[in-house]
Amino acid sequence: MSGKPVQHQYAEQLCHCYGCGYLNRQGLQVKSYFDGIESEARFFPKSYHIALPGFVYGGLLASLVDCHGVATAAAFATAKRDPEMNCSMDRYVTASLHVYFMKPTPLGEELVLKGRFKEERKNKIVVEVEIRVGDEIKVRGEVVAAPMPDSMK
Amino acid sequence: MSGKPVQHQYAEQLCHCYGCGYLNRQGLQVKSYFDGIESEARFFPKSYHIALPGFVYGGLLASLVDCHGVATAAAFATAKRDPEMNCSMDRYVTASLHVYFMKPTPLGEELVLKGRFKEERKNKIVVEVEIRVGDEIKVRGEVVAAPMPDSMK
Repeated sequence: MSGKPVQHQYAEQLCHCYGCGYLNRQGLQVKSYFDGIESEARFFPKSYHIALPGFVYGGLLASLVDCHGVATAAAFATAKRDPEMNCSMDRYVTASLHVYFMKPTPLGEELVLKGRFKEERKNKIVVEVEIRVGDEIKVRGEVVAAPMPDSMK
Repeated sequence: MSGKPVQHQYAEQLCHCYGCGYLNRQGLQVKSYFDGIESEARFFPKSYHIALPGFVYGGLLASLVDCHGVATAAAFATAKRDPEMNCSMDRYVTASLHVYFMKPTPLGEELVLKGRFKEERKNKIVVEVEIRVGDEIKVRGEVVAAPMPDSMK
């Protein structure tokens, strides 16, 4: 997918996230693209993102699910409000995060994340995320995302 | 709690984890202590572990829950096998991870993690983890840990 990453469309003061903020130089800088239905991100772990020798650290995989899931929720909500997406991108935060490590994820491979809207629960948006290496799903995740509360503004 | 951290009792070749391996210089080096019933870890996030300004990144919190939960499961399983814990520490991996962000976690404070055995599901161990700042629970987590599979050895 192409276009501008979801995370580059947040208000500038909200772009410092360690996982996906383009203004966080020490961070992972995850970039999620949304085509109106599905979202995609690609990430190549560093050699130090290790769990056991040869495999990717689960906390990194959880972080990728988190940021990609929240971005998918934000893009979905924004597109619902304005299908042309001429407005500014909504900002969501994670209410809960669920990660299922289906198979060990090998280190040294590109990870491909896909995200899809699952359902709305009152004002929350539930997103399903999967992480693939090649054709194989290694991780399945679910993110329950909530609009950024006033207490975090 | 005192004594030797659980993560320092794994076999040396299993101590490279980005979250809790003492041999991973770029990692978080989480240290979990187990008193036979409960486990504890303390962590002070870096300034760049930011979500939105003033708050801790959820992926970091998920990583802490993950490593502390797995260590608690390993210590519980080892203590069950040998209450004196004279044997080497078992190594567990994460089957699934569930993190509930109850309240925003402020940046610039020490985080205190507590872990407790919840139940066994066949060969898996379920651990509950909470993260407090002062007296307040900010995060609740659950880790389903499985013995390290042969495919990861």
